Amino acid sequence: MLRLYDSRLSGNSWKVRILLSQLGLPYERITLDIAKGDTSQAAFREISRFARVPVLQLEDGRTIVESGAILLHLAQGTPLLPDDPHERAEVMSWLFFEQADLQKAIAIPRVWHLQGLASGRQQEIQRLHAEGYPALDKLDQWLRGRTWLVGERYTIADTAASAYVSLAAEGGYDMERFSAIREWIERVKSQPAWVELVPDAR
Amino acid sequence: MLRLYDSRLSGNSWKVRILLSQLGLPYERITLDIAKGDTSQAAFREISRFARVPVLQLEDGRTIVESGAILLHLAQGTPLLPDDPHERAEVMSWLFFEQADLQKAIAIPRVWHLQGLASGRQQEIQRLHAEGYPALDKLDQWLRGRTWLVGERYTIADTAASAYVSLAAEGGYDMERFSAIREWIERVKSQPAWVELVPDAR
Repeated sequence: MLRLYDSRLSGNSWKVRILLSQLGLPYERITLDIAKGDTSQAAFREISRFARVPVLQLEDGRTIVESGAILLHLAQGTPLLPDDPHERAEVMSWLFFEQADLQKAIAIPRVWHLQGLASGRQQEIQRLHAEGYPALDKLDQWLRGRTWLVGERYTIADTAASAYVSLAAEGGYDMERFSAIREWIERVKSQPAWVELVPDAR
Repeated sequence: MLRLYDSRLSGNSWKVRILLSQLGLPYERITLDIAKGDTSQAAFREISRFARVPVLQLEDGRTIVESGAILLHLAQGTPLLPDDPHERAEVMSWLFFEQADLQKAIAIPRVWHLQGLASGRQQEIQRLHAEGYPALDKLDQWLRGRTWLVGERYTIADTAASAYVSLAAEGGYDMERFSAIREWIERVKSQPAWVELVPDAR
């Protein structure tokens, strides 16, 4: 069986859980505690050269790191990753953009807010927001008049790009102005087999 | 003919030029001047939703953005991207890691150094170095005892991960300690048809 190493609040791991659910793939979930240093342990470093989650372990024991690589691997040959080479390149471009421009700009202030550290880090949060808002603007502009990011259907581009963005308010972002993003996130969440980040929190 | 929109010093565009050269693909090069605002022009935004280089325009007029997506598109079916699904996932993980953890941490201080702005931005440079050094450490550790990043041969993982790293000293990084990285960069540079970032600078 597939095995997923994740952590409770990791948005990158969440993307993989959404996809596994949507593909109907059973898996064993190993949830690490980053605060306790689980991801720094030597045994974990053996399977995770970047010392972080998610890590997908295949049935033959080999592992894949980096959420984008895991999503592309699992979605290959399914309707969630287009066969058309140009559309596939479009999906990949969204995966790279999200990792380079959105993920940290949202995840870091979000962690500080959740840990009650935000009031002492306003300057750093402003700096991260100054990176994140232009990226959110580009995403919002693209979504105006579109239903999905690539082509006419839901793909892993939508899964990947929406995960952290849907949590941006927890990182202090004012999402009111991004109406195209907010409507798109609702469409993503209503896809079959979509799962919550923390199901038991509701 | 393929058309590549780039800028003179863009490391992400450089990766694409190296690959185009190594694949023997002719292309038209359109070099934009970022300082003059070329990448913010409405006509350019039409083909570059993220308002940046590189952009690859295919013969049918469609475009691909994000260097990682361009590299994966061009290398598909060539020896520079493995057919094996697990090895391909490994290549992708390096492309994502480089974009998320290395590219900005090197590119931003490099630009400031090249523009003579570094002395006034020491605090921001230290912050970026604090992000970049741990990523360089992970890369260096992986390369100890290995010739290439994935499998036994040069792939686009090496092209992509080495480009900015080879420029890190220009961004104020002390690369002396990273002997595995330095030796690997020499191997990358000696690959057939590898090209310099700015050929006429030598």
